[in-house]
Amino acid sequence: MRMYDIIKKKRDGEELTTEEIRFVVHGYTRGEIPDYQMAAFLMAVYFRGMNERETYDLTIAMLESGERLDLSSLKGVKLDKHSSGGVGDKITFVVLPIAASFGVKIIKMSGRGLGHTGGTIDKLESIPGMKTSLTRDEFIRIVDEIGFAVASQTENLAPADKKIYALRDATATVENLSLIASSIVSKKLAAGADAIVFDVKVGSGAFMKNVDQARRLALLMLDIVKRNGRKARAVLSNMDQPLGRMVGNSLEVIEAVECLRGEGPEDVMQLSFTLVKEMLDLAGVRVNLNDIESMVRSHEPLNRFKKFIERQGGDPSVVDDPSRLPISRDIVEVRADRDGYVARLDAEAIGRACVLLGGGRSKKEDSIDHSVGIELLKKVSDHVKAGDVLAKVYHSKRSDLNSALSLVQSAYVIFEHPVESPPTVLEVIG
Amino acid sequence: MRMYDIIKKKRDGEELTTEEIRFVVHGYTRGEIPDYQMAAFLMAVYFRGMNERETYDLTIAMLESGERLDLSSLKGVKLDKHSSGGVGDKITFVVLPIAASFGVKIIKMSGRGLGHTGGTIDKLESIPGMKTSLTRDEFIRIVDEIGFAVASQTENLAPADKKIYALRDATATVENLSLIASSIVSKKLAAGADAIVFDVKVGSGAFMKNVDQARRLALLMLDIVKRNGRKARAVLSNMDQPLGRMVGNSLEVIEAVECLRGEGPEDVMQLSFTLVKEMLDLAGVRVNLNDIESMVRSHEPLNRFKKFIERQGGDPSVVDDPSRLPISRDIVEVRADRDGYVARLDAEAIGRACVLLGGGRSKKEDSIDHSVGIELLKKVSDHVKAGDVLAKVYHSKRSDLNSALSLVQSAYVIFEHPVESPPTVLEVIG
Repeated sequence: MRMYDIIKKKRDGEELTTEEIRFVVHGYTRGEIPDYQMAAFLMAVYFRGMNERETYDLTIAMLESGERLDLSSLKGVKLDKHSSGGVGDKITFVVLPIAASFGVKIIKMSGRGLGHTGGTIDKLESIPGMKTSLTRDEFIRIVDEIGFAVASQTENLAPADKKIYALRDATATVENLSLIASSIVSKKLAAGADAIVFDVKVGSGAFMKNVDQARRLALLMLDIVKRNGRKARAVLSNMDQPLGRMVGNSLEVIEAVECLRGEGPEDVMQLSFTLVKEMLDLAGVRVNLNDIESMVRSHEPLNRFKKFIERQGGDPSVVDDPSRLPISRDIVEVRADRDGYVARLDAEAIGRACVLLGGGRSKKEDSIDHSVGIELLKKVSDHVKAGDVLAKVYHSKRSDLNSALSLVQSAYVIFEHPVESPPTVLEVIG
Repeated sequence: MRMYDIIKKKRDGEELTTEEIRFVVHGYTRGEIPDYQMAAFLMAVYFRGMNERETYDLTIAMLESGERLDLSSLKGVKLDKHSSGGVGDKITFVVLPIAASFGVKIIKMSGRGLGHTGGTIDKLESIPGMKTSLTRDEFIRIVDEIGFAVASQTENLAPADKKIYALRDATATVENLSLIASSIVSKKLAAGADAIVFDVKVGSGAFMKNVDQARRLALLMLDIVKRNGRKARAVLSNMDQPLGRMVGNSLEVIEAVECLRGEGPEDVMQLSFTLVKEMLDLAGVRVNLNDIESMVRSHEPLNRFKKFIERQGGDPSVVDDPSRLPISRDIVEVRADRDGYVARLDAEAIGRACVLLGGGRSKKEDSIDHSVGIELLKKVSDHVKAGDVLAKVYHSKRSDLNSALSLVQSAYVIFEHPVESPPTVLEVIG
């Protein structure tokens, strides 16, 4: 088998065999296939696509490139949740404690933020003392005790994905559904859950810009997971504007705690409850929204979140006293320049503003300032008067404040006439 | 300017600016752009193509990557001829002495053979003593004295092409008209002629498999040369079957000499005369076929060929005594297994058979055996009887004789009914 022939075959629009796909992935991971041949191959895949069978084979080959987490010591159905990445997405901190309170086990490997989208691990690390790098045994023990744990992705799960993704990132071959789906799902399969709920973000702040595209990605991911004999469901959710009112690491932890007290913004609550319901459903636990609301009111999820923080080495008192989180006291307000209604609040611009403040990364090597961020006092459909505060910008010495402020200002589009509040949950699939 | 953005732009089907194309070519030649980004770019070009303006800019950027031959000391119009490569193509040795006999100057940089097509330099080197690596001054002096010279391509002409071609060859991105045209023309422009005649081969043994494709390549090359303020013309010629009766290095020199005596096979004579006529026409010398035939009968071209060999260090006596050329005495005949008419004589199979005999290269590093080759006694439309000799195979100890014989046998397809003789010259363009 020669890489040249496989590139040519895909270039000419032919279907690759399981063996050919395995040859490519394993050869590349082992360094036997050079970057330049892989880059040409990926561009050919970009143009010609892969069918469901090829995409499945690609995912499995990437899965086989590394270790798989052995969860056999955990009893019952093991759940996982994946978000395709957005702005203000603190959903994991809300969903996991609630779902775990119903007795299911959730394993969650997360990544760090890059570009305009934040990362769960970065947000978690704004809690003093929090440890996100866990051994396999620690991880499983915490899941067993608390019902869930959140750890940063280890290098050993699907290493092929890491290497291929870095190359795609440098060669403009990221935007292909088969490559995206296999990248996401290979890591999720390696993490070992029996059932996975995908939160696929749609909109200007998300990778998928429209519902049709997001639906196709969701269907492809569900197909792969099901071919692998596991369960999956997908929720398409709106990412035209940021989720909730807080964007930034410490700020998002505060908002998550508000949600666990039952006092969070409606969009975060609604999406979280939908995801909880679907996760529980996959685990065979039938609940309705009232059951979930009652559970939140019982403060069982909130207490579980405290225990989780404590168990992963963090300071649980941040839950009752958010001032213990690193939050900047330097605040600049962004105000409306006219009367009207917020017609747009561009999620990507807010995400990029957060990066400029120091709360995110332009490059992988950048460090994060957990204290900065943006509090959105007005969201789409809200009425505003000229001079009203639209957003508060928490900045620090590191911040490129002027650029961030002008991005936040331009993120808001104010119309004269009333605008409807957009739906948060767009579709449930699977 | 970032290579990533240029890859993405081409991937998305947009037109690149002159500056962007220059950035790619020069950055890659200088090693500032890595192979993997260039590979992704080339695959994007494969799928999206380039328009005439982009192709021109690509050619000029490649031209600018190296030296240009300064021909200013040569008086009059300087001509060049390019063949896109075929089997049995000894045309250069016939065309150059004839055209030069009419007083024009022809500069000819040639390559070596690779794969099933032979190389002019290899063929020339079958003449004992022949020197093909000339300094600029030697080259120009010989052209000035004899009217033409043939030297192997120097490393300094369009080095970008050399580097890009090697990458295309490894990444299945050779087959794109813009990339092919820029590769050919950049070297021709660097070699400095005022007017170029392209012999574009069409058919099973050529790179261009059909007339439409060949015509598009020809038009693109003519466009580039004309945009550069020079003259050009293209001849499309048949390469479904090998040209002439001789395939192999020494054997082709012998056939070229026969042509210069006016005794060569009709197809070689016809194509040579057409090319001579077009070249002279570009130089402002109007001749008809009778003039060319008379010139050949005068033996002026034959004598000029002898002088050329002598001037480049070779033994000119091979012209009058071909037995001084290295020719194997080990000959196996391939015979017809039925009565009928030769319906096909697959040029690529004959070319590959010659490689198996040792007369060509599979890899760049392979050395050439000048003594082997194939003499085609029967060609398309010829009547044969079972047992007639179709071809003589000249082999040596190095030859993979059995494989070569079976290729030669299978190259011949014999039909019961008469078959028309195919035309040699298909079209003249420009």
